[in-house]
Amino acid sequence: MTVELICVGTELLLGNIVNTNAAFISEKCAMLGLSMYYQSVVGDNEGRLEELLKTAWNRSDVVILSGGLGPTQDDLTKETAAKVMGRPLVEDARARREIEDFMAKRGRLVTENNWKQAMVPKGSLVLYNPNGTAPGIIMEDGEKCMILLPGPPNELVPMFEEQVYPYLHRMQPEIICSKMVKLCGIGESSAETKILDLIERQSNPTVAPYAKTGEVHLRITAKAKSEQEAYRLMEPVEQELRARFGDLIYTDEPEVTLEMAIYELLKANGLTVTTAESCTGGLLAGRLINVPGISQYLKEGYVTYSNEAKEKLLGVPAETLKRHGAVSPQTAEAMAEGGAKAADADLCIAVTGIAGPDGGTEEKPVGLVYMSCYCRGTCYTEKNQYTGSRSKIREYSVASALTLLRRAILDHF
Amino acid sequence: MTVELICVGTELLLGNIVNTNAAFISEKCAMLGLSMYYQSVVGDNEGRLEELLKTAWNRSDVVILSGGLGPTQDDLTKETAAKVMGRPLVEDARARREIEDFMAKRGRLVTENNWKQAMVPKGSLVLYNPNGTAPGIIMEDGEKCMILLPGPPNELVPMFEEQVYPYLHRMQPEIICSKMVKLCGIGESSAETKILDLIERQSNPTVAPYAKTGEVHLRITAKAKSEQEAYRLMEPVEQELRARFGDLIYTDEPEVTLEMAIYELLKANGLTVTTAESCTGGLLAGRLINVPGISQYLKEGYVTYSNEAKEKLLGVPAETLKRHGAVSPQTAEAMAEGGAKAADADLCIAVTGIAGPDGGTEEKPVGLVYMSCYCRGTCYTEKNQYTGSRSKIREYSVASALTLLRRAILDHF
Repeated sequence: MTVELICVGTELLLGNIVNTNAAFISEKCAMLGLSMYYQSVVGDNEGRLEELLKTAWNRSDVVILSGGLGPTQDDLTKETAAKVMGRPLVEDARARREIEDFMAKRGRLVTENNWKQAMVPKGSLVLYNPNGTAPGIIMEDGEKCMILLPGPPNELVPMFEEQVYPYLHRMQPEIICSKMVKLCGIGESSAETKILDLIERQSNPTVAPYAKTGEVHLRITAKAKSEQEAYRLMEPVEQELRARFGDLIYTDEPEVTLEMAIYELLKANGLTVTTAESCTGGLLAGRLINVPGISQYLKEGYVTYSNEAKEKLLGVPAETLKRHGAVSPQTAEAMAEGGAKAADADLCIAVTGIAGPDGGTEEKPVGLVYMSCYCRGTCYTEKNQYTGSRSKIREYSVASALTLLRRAILDHF
Repeated sequence: MTVELICVGTELLLGNIVNTNAAFISEKCAMLGLSMYYQSVVGDNEGRLEELLKTAWNRSDVVILSGGLGPTQDDLTKETAAKVMGRPLVEDARARREIEDFMAKRGRLVTENNWKQAMVPKGSLVLYNPNGTAPGIIMEDGEKCMILLPGPPNELVPMFEEQVYPYLHRMQPEIICSKMVKLCGIGESSAETKILDLIERQSNPTVAPYAKTGEVHLRITAKAKSEQEAYRLMEPVEQELRARFGDLIYTDEPEVTLEMAIYELLKANGLTVTTAESCTGGLLAGRLINVPGISQYLKEGYVTYSNEAKEKLLGVPAETLKRHGAVSPQTAEAMAEGGAKAADADLCIAVTGIAGPDGGTEEKPVGLVYMSCYCRGTCYTEKNQYTGSRSKIREYSVASALTLLRRAILDHF
């Protein structure tokens, strides 16, 4: 069954707000196994909305609209949808009562235009809205249906979860399940090259690569009658991916991040870690501290942006800085070793580089970043050369540093 | 002139990612005075993309596509667009060289599928991409044009700002100029209330508020034949805003960020600063170090996530931690004062709070964050209560800490 989404609102076309409703509804529909081929955004304009709605109604089984159910003149989604479906608007008694209650509870007066929100297309299912004055609407027509939802996420989200999701679930016998296999330490195209054959001969389940900063995510998706069956279908594919990528895979849970995977490794091995950052200036510690509960394993971190700080806080020898420069493998290793000592930690991940835009030279260009991970006596050191903006270089440095930290723990312990 | 946006990517239809590109491009097009009537999202499917592209090309002057320019099999935006425009794909020598360089710089091998990215529709303007391997493309046809951009925001955003925006600007006879007056230390609704009268009686120039994390941006936009005229029109409005908001305004330059404004203050007053972070765990230092050249003023920073670290690195008395707890104004002030001493800095901005999701109590709920700014002997301390996810709480804490730091410098020196 196909579903199509139309978001109505000039504020979306002006870029005043980000369309989070689209992501939310799309994800839910994907979980329901509904195939979404199109999403559109159109302004509060009757002519264009009507045209778009007709096209959508012709090509899709389920058409979901969000926005334009407000009380004001320019809210015309309901009026336009009713027109396209050839249904008159009639007042819904309960909707009218609920609007009265809603406003009364808030000590607000019901203005004339609020009553507009109690009007619904004849013969439609009304989705009452405890979080606002605009009820949602479902218009059925044989196998097809059109669903109207209010635009504000705090009204749309609960209405969808509590009323629309169960409704669509009943229409949809087959479900879709997916797993996310996440890799670090390999680029998107090399990752894809390793699984081209799988991608080419796939039908159900399917595998698709997504590039993230410093990571590649492979999504396995299966369609089936039940969850168990879907997971049964995905199992061999995941096995195959594990065989091909080994421990480049850091998780197969959609919500697990690289820093969470590192947290689990620290926990499993009872290791403490600290950070010694120059060009990333705190962002690396910031990523690790995304993980609640890491405080047992990461007690402190050092932002040593200046040479003085590298000497003072990490005990990097002035000689090393003088001889090899702040951006060198020697300094990176001295930072890592010194950081571990200073924090009395098992591990220290150190980053030093030239984030730019200035400060680059012939032999040390902008984007040159050395990182070293000290593991109880051994330093795992890496040279990276990035391009792009200062913030991009720093972002990639953080991703590589996390990857190096993970690799060091895996190889060393 | 009308513009239409088509975002290509199955991950958007599956709701894996939020479509921030659409908001970004829409906002820029609005600034250019281009009228956007439609936005669409379509998957990596040639048939549907082709159909949508034909419709868009018929009804709009400028069609912008984002996504689907990657090296993989399912990236087919370029191929489909070239087909619709009836242009063969030819290899672009420079694009090929840049792909080689890009991969070489990263010590990565160029896989066969990368070369696909060096192919461009015959006779198109190529937008070279320093941040990735997919060049952007502009195909002109009389008064109209089709613009193809890579999907990853860190590639799309700089390419749009540096190459597409100036290009579209040249196509527009009547130009739109805008100034961004940025405020910190005031909420969106209070800011809007202060200028409702301006907003209501506006025509040209217009003023519109945008809420950003911990900031409010007021955009003044004027339509005029020339830049001088536009700026002449905006001048009195800006004067009015300055009269109403005073030094809550930290800049009127679109590209100036709050951390840059703080950097200028440090420079002007010859002040050094350090950071002492608990719940923000490095993100605050990370924000400040976004500014190139801040190294003279921020030499080091401390991530003191544990109580031990607060005692050891910042000299917070065990007694204070025991008596008032780690999340208290007393600890925040001890962290700020101790941090300044440890780093021998004029200023230290300290943050300690409960980012959650756990660790909250009746009297100290999740989202409670204390911050203190030490200025040569005086502590400016603030209590904040945030709601939302762990990352939102940390993000808002960083924004408030920067605002407090700026306020302290302004008031103290």
